Amino acid sequence: MVGMAATREPKVVVLGGGSWGTTVASICARRGPTLQWVRSEETAKDINENHRNTKYLAKDVELSETLRATTDFAEAAHAADVVVMGVPSHGFRDVLTELASELRPWVPVVSLVKGLEQGTNMRMSQIVDEVLPGHPAGILAGPNIAREVAEGYAAAAVLAMPDQHLAAQLAHLFRTKRFRVYTIDDVLGVEMAGALKNVYAIAVGMGYSLGIGENTRAMVIARSVREMSKLGEAMGGQRDTFNGLAGLGDLIVTCTSQRSRNRHVGEQLGAGKPIDEIISSMNQVAEGVKAASVIMEFADKYGLNMPIAREVDGVINHGCTVEDAYRGLAAETPGHEVHGSGF
Amino acid sequence: MVGMAATREPKVVVLGGGSWGTTVASICARRGPTLQWVRSEETAKDINENHRNTKYLAKDVELSETLRATTDFAEAAHAADVVVMGVPSHGFRDVLTELASELRPWVPVVSLVKGLEQGTNMRMSQIVDEVLPGHPAGILAGPNIAREVAEGYAAAAVLAMPDQHLAAQLAHLFRTKRFRVYTIDDVLGVEMAGALKNVYAIAVGMGYSLGIGENTRAMVIARSVREMSKLGEAMGGQRDTFNGLAGLGDLIVTCTSQRSRNRHVGEQLGAGKPIDEIISSMNQVAEGVKAASVIMEFADKYGLNMPIAREVDGVINHGCTVEDAYRGLAAETPGHEVHGSGF
Repeated sequence: MVGMAATREPKVVVLGGGSWGTTVASICARRGPTLQWVRSEETAKDINENHRNTKYLAKDVELSETLRATTDFAEAAHAADVVVMGVPSHGFRDVLTELASELRPWVPVVSLVKGLEQGTNMRMSQIVDEVLPGHPAGILAGPNIAREVAEGYAAAAVLAMPDQHLAAQLAHLFRTKRFRVYTIDDVLGVEMAGALKNVYAIAVGMGYSLGIGENTRAMVIARSVREMSKLGEAMGGQRDTFNGLAGLGDLIVTCTSQRSRNRHVGEQLGAGKPIDEIISSMNQVAEGVKAASVIMEFADKYGLNMPIAREVDGVINHGCTVEDAYRGLAAETPGHEVHGSGF
Repeated sequence: MVGMAATREPKVVVLGGGSWGTTVASICARRGPTLQWVRSEETAKDINENHRNTKYLAKDVELSETLRATTDFAEAAHAADVVVMGVPSHGFRDVLTELASELRPWVPVVSLVKGLEQGTNMRMSQIVDEVLPGHPAGILAGPNIAREVAEGYAAAAVLAMPDQHLAAQLAHLFRTKRFRVYTIDDVLGVEMAGALKNVYAIAVGMGYSLGIGENTRAMVIARSVREMSKLGEAMGGQRDTFNGLAGLGDLIVTCTSQRSRNRHVGEQLGAGKPIDEIISSMNQVAEGVKAASVIMEFADKYGLNMPIAREVDGVINHGCTVEDAYRGLAAETPGHEVHGSGF
């Protein structure tokens, strides 16, 4: 266009070397300059020399050849025009704090984390606001099993940023023909959907173990979306967010995927195994186990009745059986589908 | 309560002898007096003597012992305090017309039909308004595979009636411990969701044949709910309805069930079979095949871009391949998740 100068491509820096961080870094590298910071020399070498991350992704997953990895945190921090946070929730604050002294002003921070900070129950964007004030904070989330995206199957996500102009600009950096990035302004809603959905995936998993039908599963999913949304709206989120990719979409994947850890927990609980035994038999954390009691704290704080979460919490933390849980739900009389307060 | 007289239990009359009509009749009979009108003497006898409907339900499905069936239309019409319409959409108007001269005034009519009248594209409640003016018209719908409900698996549905007091009264008649009936006032929304979802189930079925991942399926479901809702809202329906049991819930069942005829059509189309061959090989109609072109008429009328429906219509009616369809969708740039006009 006449009068419009070409602008420099922003450099995306992805912090974290896990499966999803690597997948997103590889997507960004197909679009423009991208640097990934990882802790392990071995992983950095694997990415730079073999275009693979064999520790976290399948051997046949080829990463973008233009993706460069480094273990030098300062190098990554200085280079960043956009920061993508691919570190787990328990390391999130520390990495940000280290970043604070290095990062240039105004650089947007996009979180990939679907969880709350333990102890504080803070959302990741709240931590950004606290540790890096002035940096726009958002989240990229959706029904995105890393392995599938890495293997090139089509998928979609939402990028939530408070400023929609910025959201539209940033969305370009993550978009490929097979990875569809929509925009939205409800950061809180997307973050809460990501934190809440795991508890509901456990509820569906418990149902599988009882041999529920396909009708029952669809019922639990539909009512779970409504229940998540009720809390999210009370906190200031938007109903549309919970009914979209980050809420409903992610819940569907988490409930139906064979690979879902949270669904697995629900199934094992239904088989009568104690929660400690289930947890110690898994090599990765099922976020929903911790989140169940957190939801009950929020429900309390906002004075909401959250029957599905309450029953999951009962089974995980208060010795109830899965049969008790489903009987408890069945005992509630259905009311108005949208405005009713119960299950 | 003091001063409250006991009221007579309303007699429910279910018209139609198919699997879902019979299942609903059996549910109602567990609650109170219920009469089912069926065309076939043999089916009436099977229901009355064996408490079975072996023509439409599995042999091991036992119906309520208190359910009575008749082939006498006048008897059924005179007895009705509530009419439940379990006849298919193509016979709906004729049965109502026959009913018009027999039915007592004010008797509510609850449709079980998820489809539009061929030729007129009218919703069933519109036909009730035309043929039986003054009779409140509503619909009971949700993720309800008849066989599963009949076998006693838990399920949920919404009963939509314009008057919420009446809805609450009627909902009692359909409720059991295992069949959860919620209420809602958006009759149009529930009827349109029922008519539209089959087209989207075909879209997901086409995807299965291309080997889409679980992410992709969740994406198509989430975007389908949004697209259905867009048309429904333009027609005067409510977004919440499409995000609830009758929209999202029913779509999930229709997309994931192995038994779904519409999903089957999508899979067969994906395997390269011509639509005529697929239709003639099925002994039951897949509603979505007819509905695809109907949606395009509505999209045209309301000036809406409905890319998923458009691609399904392209494959069914305009010789496109399933690969073309998915390529067409992938070519659309994602916009705002809620307010964007495209896929």
